[in-house]
Amino acid sequence: MSASFESRIAHYVSRVENVLDEVLPAATVQPKRLHDAMRYAVFNGGKRVRPLLVYAAGECLGLREDALDAPAAAIELIHAFSLVHDDLPAMDDDDIRRGKPTVHRQFDEATAILAADALQPLAFSVLANVGDAPPGASARLVGIVADAAGSIGMTGGQSMDLAAEGKSLTVDEIEHMYALKTGALIHAAVMCAAALSENLPDDRASAIDAFGRTIGIAFQIKDDILDVEGDTEVIGKRSGADQRLGKATFPGLVGIDEARARCGSLLRSALEQLDDFGADADSLRWLARFVVERGN
Amino acid sequence: MSASFESRIAHYVSRVENVLDEVLPAATVQPKRLHDAMRYAVFNGGKRVRPLLVYAAGECLGLREDALDAPAAAIELIHAFSLVHDDLPAMDDDDIRRGKPTVHRQFDEATAILAADALQPLAFSVLANVGDAPPGASARLVGIVADAAGSIGMTGGQSMDLAAEGKSLTVDEIEHMYALKTGALIHAAVMCAAALSENLPDDRASAIDAFGRTIGIAFQIKDDILDVEGDTEVIGKRSGADQRLGKATFPGLVGIDEARARCGSLLRSALEQLDDFGADADSLRWLARFVVERGN
Repeated sequence: MSASFESRIAHYVSRVENVLDEVLPAATVQPKRLHDAMRYAVFNGGKRVRPLLVYAAGECLGLREDALDAPAAAIELIHAFSLVHDDLPAMDDDDIRRGKPTVHRQFDEATAILAADALQPLAFSVLANVGDAPPGASARLVGIVADAAGSIGMTGGQSMDLAAEGKSLTVDEIEHMYALKTGALIHAAVMCAAALSENLPDDRASAIDAFGRTIGIAFQIKDDILDVEGDTEVIGKRSGADQRLGKATFPGLVGIDEARARCGSLLRSALEQLDDFGADADSLRWLARFVVERGN
Repeated sequence: MSASFESRIAHYVSRVENVLDEVLPAATVQPKRLHDAMRYAVFNGGKRVRPLLVYAAGECLGLREDALDAPAAAIELIHAFSLVHDDLPAMDDDDIRRGKPTVHRQFDEATAILAADALQPLAFSVLANVGDAPPGASARLVGIVADAAGSIGMTGGQSMDLAAEGKSLTVDEIEHMYALKTGALIHAAVMCAAALSENLPDDRASAIDAFGRTIGIAFQIKDDILDVEGDTEVIGKRSGADQRLGKATFPGLVGIDEARARCGSLLRSALEQLDDFGADADSLRWLARFVVERGN
């Protein structure tokens, strides 16, 4: 691909949002309030970074974009589910997300719990229907996304995050928690593309794997940095929330300068993994830089 | 199978509990509290009716029992997840389940939300690993269970149930809600066996389908009857909970006698679906009667 990835972002976002719109029942279908809440949770102005990673990894591996729509949508559904539950009063107790009331504030707590509960199986339903090209693709995608969502992935990381409130962790413990809480789903995004790639050599699969793990941790450290320095209007939620909750964060432990430095070194390390891919990986490179340099 | 299904229940329960024990991370694995809560939610003295339905439907269709272990376990994981969230303060606010503190009472609310959130992808991970015999089996099972769990299945039914509190529904509306809330997963249990059956004639697939739908509604009406007449010690949770919550229930609408009569007629209708299967369906018949005649 010669033109920059940036010029294709709107196209990819539109693709994944079309799929999301197709698979989410209309808000006129019973139970209407639940479907309304599910749509509110998914169409929330998100940047769709995870779907973009699926498409960029697909470009890198020479896949057709229509093969990437299902995993892109499924991963965004899992991400949306996790945000709804993270915002609940028993969890981070957030009233605002991306400048709008969180789902439990806009609807009610029970509806928020159930809407997220229903987004999760919808993701797997989407993956169950991708067909068998290459053979076994559907089941492989389900396995990747399910493991990333579960107790040894995203949900486990969220549990560690809550358990760490008010405690002091080591740098390694914080990075392990980030690798699960945020990294698991970012990693799954690129691994879905790898799972759809026939005859992918082991060294390339390993490089994509390592890229995904590295950039996932960088993503969360950048989120923390934005939480410290960001202004509420730009990041779309109350800044300084982590400190208010006594969260164990990377900048909280080592300071903002060292956190920025760690982000930079993770970015370099992620980019190194892409060296053998040449220009095919330009989109992944662009996205990796975006993750670390974004302003919200 | 000549011996009665009752004599095989302990065997099947042991099979599915072995799978559950294998796939659930040990409570010594990080995050420990989350894994402890997941195990507490799953190993809770439940009757394992849904796994038993998978095995009984498998007997009816001549399947090997080891092919049935994965869907049996997956469906029980989805069931366990739903109970944890149903018991939350924002939902039914139950302190006791099967004579023990509910997960959010034994642990805490955040842990209960997350433990259930992690049980759900674990179910799909189990199904992703069943292999491809018959071809596409894994993806088909994921589709069946995902649709049954989602907004047009169990979670949608739970949402309708909450929305109906304090309202009066018609008999049809209540049965539709039951078909989703409870029926969807019961139906999925028998449909998983059908999905694993090669060359199943359409009329037999339809009969299993109708059997599952019918017995699922009967199951929930029986639950309601037990809630009205049961004693807290026997049913393992506070009896009369439905009335206390202002739930729209079948016996609440038509009275206990008519509810019992409806259960009986649903049982007869379910049994009729099995006529063409002869002795192969004896286990499903036994389970259907158990659903309607059980004392807790």
